[in-house]
Amino acid sequence: MKFRRSERLIDMTNYLLEHPRQLVPLTFFADRYGSAKSSISEDLGIIKETFEQRGIGILQTVPGAAGGVKFRVKVPEEEARLLVDELCSVIASPERLLPGGYLYMNDILGNPQIVQRTGRLFASAYADKHIDVVMTVATKGIPLAYAVASQLNVPVVIVRRDSKVTEGSTVSINYVSGSAKRIQTMVLSKRSLAEGSNVLIVDDFMKAGGTVNGMINMLEEFNAHVAGIAVLVESENMEERLVDEYLSLVRLSDVDVKEKKISVNEGNFFIKKKHKM
Amino acid sequence: MKFRRSERLIDMTNYLLEHPRQLVPLTFFADRYGSAKSSISEDLGIIKETFEQRGIGILQTVPGAAGGVKFRVKVPEEEARLLVDELCSVIASPERLLPGGYLYMNDILGNPQIVQRTGRLFASAYADKHIDVVMTVATKGIPLAYAVASQLNVPVVIVRRDSKVTEGSTVSINYVSGSAKRIQTMVLSKRSLAEGSNVLIVDDFMKAGGTVNGMINMLEEFNAHVAGIAVLVESENMEERLVDEYLSLVRLSDVDVKEKKISVNEGNFFIKKKHKM
Repeated sequence: MKFRRSERLIDMTNYLLEHPRQLVPLTFFADRYGSAKSSISEDLGIIKETFEQRGIGILQTVPGAAGGVKFRVKVPEEEARLLVDELCSVIASPERLLPGGYLYMNDILGNPQIVQRTGRLFASAYADKHIDVVMTVATKGIPLAYAVASQLNVPVVIVRRDSKVTEGSTVSINYVSGSAKRIQTMVLSKRSLAEGSNVLIVDDFMKAGGTVNGMINMLEEFNAHVAGIAVLVESENMEERLVDEYLSLVRLSDVDVKEKKISVNEGNFFIKKKHKM
Repeated sequence: MKFRRSERLIDMTNYLLEHPRQLVPLTFFADRYGSAKSSISEDLGIIKETFEQRGIGILQTVPGAAGGVKFRVKVPEEEARLLVDELCSVIASPERLLPGGYLYMNDILGNPQIVQRTGRLFASAYADKHIDVVMTVATKGIPLAYAVASQLNVPVVIVRRDSKVTEGSTVSINYVSGSAKRIQTMVLSKRSLAEGSNVLIVDDFMKAGGTVNGMINMLEEFNAHVAGIAVLVESENMEERLVDEYLSLVRLSDVDVKEKKISVNEGNFFIKKKHKM
């Protein structure tokens, strides 16, 4: 069966989007369509150009006999700004206010479109780094962690508050939650993380950073390394921030329960990205 | 700026894959590329044919002034069989065996590729049904629920074992866990689920179905309806199954702790799908 160029372009686009950060040899596509490698090469040139122009991502060409192409997501600045603005405006809605000044976020974190766009953005920011695994803590950060991990093509590891029988043997640590200064426990299944892994920590919310710090301490138990920290929302008004190196999309600057007013700004994403990413 | 057909096909493919089950008017694409509607119509014809031939999904054409196209995922039988076979063989690996006959599944549920393929398969099975929301219970079912929901373009609602301050007011129910016959509690944030919703329940593991039954009872509290139940693994050897109508990919028929042997078969997916889906 022979494939026309138009069919190849559609199928290759789908294939590359579904296999981010995987090296796909030209011969794979040549065999798949019964086409000459020169035709595949031309196809990939068109896809590469369109992916870049349309802000879909980067198609990297790896030359040589063991070469091929690798797709990785790259979110353009305008799209990132759109998402951050949208997040700021939905989070500022006074209906989110819960007793104690907490914010209801389930609708945002339950929306797969928002979660995926956020995942693409974080994956885009860390696409150049060597990352073996994405780590989060149960429960709210899980969807975001998967959205990032699927674009980085790495597994997800979930730290829990309590140990469950289905985790097998676990490593348990105590940590001080930053805002309430309470001693808390977190556990991680021993076989879920390989020694020496490079880990991207992802979470939905960071107050003083106690939980994120706990995860960093947990990584030490596994001789693993922090490759990055990405949070959707950070809360600003803390005397001391425990964690320095992180990316945030939204910063919660003030919650006034009496006046029912939530003040939000954009997080440090664009500043950090300009300086070092 | 003018777009060539090849560029349009690549960008449209990406757009449609990212917006499943959404009606996209022809004029949207015509404006996006500055092209005549007749050219867009031809493009969509090519995409539709390729999507079907390559097992990517269905492109439905909605005629009329308010018409357009709608993409939905459709996993071909061969691909479904491949996934189920792969799942059966990884689950049967004796290293998963934990004390008490439990199975370690974190590596499978932590693999975004497996989770997404499973999500596509379940979404494909329920794509014709009217579904407003996907529901799961914390923690292990969450990634699967998102993978299904993102293909169905609906939000995810997470039932918890314990109430948290960030949930706002909650509805709490007691239920009998099927296997251990213990009374347990589950809670759902009140504002997370609208009255009368059609709900697809998704979970990673079903033993006697007590937890799934609990979720069904929870739905009654919200006057919501069960649109379907999809589980990755069911465990067979229970006297009475509490839940009748469900889809499963893998059936765990026997776990022999002494001999370190896990017996698995394919679940009811292919039988159920033939008869009624």
